[in-house]
Amino acid sequence: MDNCIFCMIANGQIPSTSVYEDEDFKVVFDIAPAAKGHLLILPKAHADNVCDLSEETAAKIMPLAAKLGSAQMKALGAKGFNIVVNTGEAAGQTVMHCHTHVIPRYEGEAPIVANWAQGSYADGEAASIAQAIVKAL
Amino acid sequence: MDNCIFCMIANGQIPSTSVYEDEDFKVVFDIAPAAKGHLLILPKAHADNVCDLSEETAAKIMPLAAKLGSAQMKALGAKGFNIVVNTGEAAGQTVMHCHTHVIPRYEGEAPIVANWAQGSYADGEAASIAQAIVKAL
Repeated sequence: MDNCIFCMIANGQIPSTSVYEDEDFKVVFDIAPAAKGHLLILPKAHADNVCDLSEETAAKIMPLAAKLGSAQMKALGAKGFNIVVNTGEAAGQTVMHCHTHVIPRYEGEAPIVANWAQGSYADGEAASIAQAIVKAL
Repeated sequence: MDNCIFCMIANGQIPSTSVYEDEDFKVVFDIAPAAKGHLLILPKAHADNVCDLSEETAAKIMPLAAKLGSAQMKALGAKGFNIVVNTGEAAGQTVMHCHTHVIPRYEGEAPIVANWAQGSYADGEAASIAQAIVKAL
């Protein structure tokens, strides 16, 4: 897509630090990393978000993310990693080209994923919300 | 696995509010939700984390998460959603049975994914970290 910065990075028109590339994806360093070695999995074919990817392409992301996270632990001494996909501005997506964050976690660092408030459901509320989701699936 | 609470939920020994089930996964409500309709994708076969899943099972997660997130938006009026997989205690994983969060985002709510400090790399640092990751892949 014209003027999409992640299209340009994924397809090599803009240089990047990359650790992996295949037919479908380029994996690059986030230039403003949450932690050293923070990676972005970029599909080469433009899709605004994960819902717009083909099922075939989407299927390749999680196995790849797991491999990348393992490599971060092995190579960088990370003690764990977060895989994060934000969909929509309300979810914190800032570039509208689907990207999967793989963020190594080192001991003693601030969390990436918020220690979210643990909500609860009123009687029957969970069941009725579940029913609505099932209908929409 | 004995005494694994997510094994027991995924395989129906502990009741849950569920929106989807197939041969490989059960998708249930998080009982302490970050937002109304917060879902967990639980593989039925025990794996401590995403690195321990078979590639075949891991491949099914992202397409399923995208479908669930779309349904949250359609059914609940969510404006977006976060897909989050935490691997290792350092990354915030608290139950050692692989699980993928699909969290609907509503307008005006606190973010789930931290507005992380945007780091930077010294000259040459990104390239040398990248090299280490490539070697470990």
